[in-house]
Amino acid sequence: MLTRDVIRALAKALGPERVFDDPATLALYSTDETPRKVTPGAVLFPANHEHVVALMQIAFANKLPVVARGAGSGNVGGALPVANGLVASFECMNRIVEFDPGNRIMVVEPGVVTEDIGQLARTHGLFYPPDPGSGAYSRIGGNLAMNAAGPHAIKYGVTRDYVLGLKAVTGEGKTISTGCRTSKGVTGYDFTRLLIGSEGTLALITQATVKLLPAPETVATLRLCYASNRAACEAIDRVMNQPIIPCALELMDRRSIEAIRPTGAADDLPFGTEALLMVEADGPVRDVPHQIAALKEALKGDGLLEVREGVTREEAQALWAARKSLSHAVKQYAPLKINEDVVVPVSRLADFVDFLDSLGHRYPFPIVSFGHAGNGNLHVNLMVHPDNTEEMAQARNCLNELFTTVLSFGGTLSGEHGIGTEKRAYLGMEINADTLSLMRAVKQQFDPAGILNPGKLFPDS
Amino acid sequence: MLTRDVIRALAKALGPERVFDDPATLALYSTDETPRKVTPGAVLFPANHEHVVALMQIAFANKLPVVARGAGSGNVGGALPVANGLVASFECMNRIVEFDPGNRIMVVEPGVVTEDIGQLARTHGLFYPPDPGSGAYSRIGGNLAMNAAGPHAIKYGVTRDYVLGLKAVTGEGKTISTGCRTSKGVTGYDFTRLLIGSEGTLALITQATVKLLPAPETVATLRLCYASNRAACEAIDRVMNQPIIPCALELMDRRSIEAIRPTGAADDLPFGTEALLMVEADGPVRDVPHQIAALKEALKGDGLLEVREGVTREEAQALWAARKSLSHAVKQYAPLKINEDVVVPVSRLADFVDFLDSLGHRYPFPIVSFGHAGNGNLHVNLMVHPDNTEEMAQARNCLNELFTTVLSFGGTLSGEHGIGTEKRAYLGMEINADTLSLMRAVKQQFDPAGILNPGKLFPDS
Repeated sequence: MLTRDVIRALAKALGPERVFDDPATLALYSTDETPRKVTPGAVLFPANHEHVVALMQIAFANKLPVVARGAGSGNVGGALPVANGLVASFECMNRIVEFDPGNRIMVVEPGVVTEDIGQLARTHGLFYPPDPGSGAYSRIGGNLAMNAAGPHAIKYGVTRDYVLGLKAVTGEGKTISTGCRTSKGVTGYDFTRLLIGSEGTLALITQATVKLLPAPETVATLRLCYASNRAACEAIDRVMNQPIIPCALELMDRRSIEAIRPTGAADDLPFGTEALLMVEADGPVRDVPHQIAALKEALKGDGLLEVREGVTREEAQALWAARKSLSHAVKQYAPLKINEDVVVPVSRLADFVDFLDSLGHRYPFPIVSFGHAGNGNLHVNLMVHPDNTEEMAQARNCLNELFTTVLSFGGTLSGEHGIGTEKRAYLGMEINADTLSLMRAVKQQFDPAGILNPGKLFPDS
Repeated sequence: MLTRDVIRALAKALGPERVFDDPATLALYSTDETPRKVTPGAVLFPANHEHVVALMQIAFANKLPVVARGAGSGNVGGALPVANGLVASFECMNRIVEFDPGNRIMVVEPGVVTEDIGQLARTHGLFYPPDPGSGAYSRIGGNLAMNAAGPHAIKYGVTRDYVLGLKAVTGEGKTISTGCRTSKGVTGYDFTRLLIGSEGTLALITQATVKLLPAPETVATLRLCYASNRAACEAIDRVMNQPIIPCALELMDRRSIEAIRPTGAADDLPFGTEALLMVEADGPVRDVPHQIAALKEALKGDGLLEVREGVTREEAQALWAARKSLSHAVKQYAPLKINEDVVVPVSRLADFVDFLDSLGHRYPFPIVSFGHAGNGNLHVNLMVHPDNTEEMAQARNCLNELFTTVLSFGGTLSGEHGIGTEKRAYLGMEINADTLSLMRAVKQQFDPAGILNPGKLFPDS
């Protein structure tokens, strides 16, 4: 499908230095954070909005699939190429177009690294709250595509909550502008939030206006060790039943703690620790100690073994050491981590962690769970061997059981990673048929040729 | 178009006591807060989701327009009937289906009065932040349709920010479910926010899951008198350049103060007051005084004539007296208030208020401006005589000038009222043609017969 004529047309429109189809480049752009690999036909590096319009018009005329790509750091295959299709990498569209501290906004291109937004904001006492784990290298375009979030979401919300407006190019190569530059606006349909989380299936975002908040003066950190998962979850429930909202509330379950023992990162945990909570509070210097005192009070209860507190950055980092060592440590279990980011209502978290324990007993592979428990959002990791057919079949059964339980608890299949290739078969479990077909119909309006990220998000029909 | 057969079918589906087509009822439901009047063919009072499905299926089969209606308190004609069409009044769907304080959510039907949500929430130390001026009688369904907001928006955001999921009925009578019950979720397109602010043109919302926050312990109020509009706007700009976010920051301009003088409500303002700011801070009892001190510091500057502070509810109410008297007081000027809720970036507010002054000099009718200045959102009220053809023509010219200037400042046509019938002719000034036609195409998917609130939001094509 990708002819020399198409490559020539793309090279003419974008400049030959922005169109690559050599094997090395194609190989480099054939993967993301999933274990899959799909080789595209060409990788394009647009430098501006007009390039994106031109490439989409050529793709539309030739019915060529286009997959938008930021850092390729997504967990669900959202940025995986389509075989022999086009990849539009936004790495070169990485300018901060405007920073207006007085109105607390920043206008950015999709290739800007997430943390760069926050760093520039801090030069004027502002901050950009969404903090995905990949923030040091993820591009904001990918964050927008997946509605990324992180620990801060419990207090500050997710990417969707910090975008005022977008500029984007549809599947026909038309330019749309959504939202506004002001903190309020209700003119027309909310296409801004329709595009956020749409995983590159509706339009290619070429510019975003993000909202900033005053940076909190300080942050303090608590590490709490509990004798059981259930005790830790009950503590989380108590936190949700008092008025102080922490700016992070992260859980590591028993299996996570086992995972880090060989690395030494658990050596400073008291004997009998089976669950760990990391809790942070931020705000004015005079207020944070009061917040911490209230949180400690709520976190106190049956099964609490130890509380440690960090005020300086060094102290906080030492307390986070166990949690930070986890991602690497789990790799000892198996080569493949099937990472699900399900969400349940916080009041059901204790029951849910019990259920995860029972799953762990009934399946032969380790299941390690940790994450943003304050939102009820846990990363449930099935550690499996992809070459073991029997194990992979059991993993599928396990996922089915997991998702069924999550939904029966009033939860959702994904809190922040999205659907991509990895969860699309399950989407129909959560979203009813009429709603899904309306989503398909909406996609058809933005992308009549069905060329924007095909094979993602939607289940096979 | 509304035959006896249709009325019979509706009466059979909903029960005869839920279908009215007597002249008195039709007259009662022929208006909203605009000066317009359109008589519907029948008014329906569905009691549950199934009723709404049934009425939409009948309307779809007979190609009958359906206008959803809450309290009829909208400012832009969003709930105005279509002549001889159906009005679906949600007054009877006013149940709070579920209140789950532990997960900080409430599930409500669209006919619930906005403030009732907050009142129930407060029984468990929670609150529902969106606070439209009509909140004491507006229905949450209307708030969802228009993405309503109020003074709290500066700190807490708008209706859109407090809705986790919806249940709704499309223009074909199909049931869709959007979003989730948890504080995070990214499965499928964000139809929740697509429906919020869509003014009843995409679907009829039958249930909403709203998010609640811990209620602030206390609130304190400042009333500040300035010698000029410009001095007050510069103070607002200074507030935005320090880290404390007030929970209200309202402006009354010179003309607003003139309006209340005859009522006596301005008697306690110092001589020379030409602009008034109402500023509130909320939070923990130990913290609010610090916030107030920081805000006072920022609000200090050239032209500040007086600061008064209210801590008790009575003191606060006394300070708000001038502001509260305004809506009634402006009616002395003329029988018709053309109320525009434009938004400009806060940094341009001083220039914008200068521009409004110049408008006031150049047009023969009073222009009274006040509102949510902390968001850059001003209510600009043209006080006119609807029977005076010459004056109404000048008002149209004035609105054109107003909107052109707002957009040239990087602002937006509506911050919280929406488009309805009143602003649809102007929507094309803000939203480009390709984006607008995509909005129409999306509507077509939700409402293939074009029967959901026709003649609203979109300009004539």
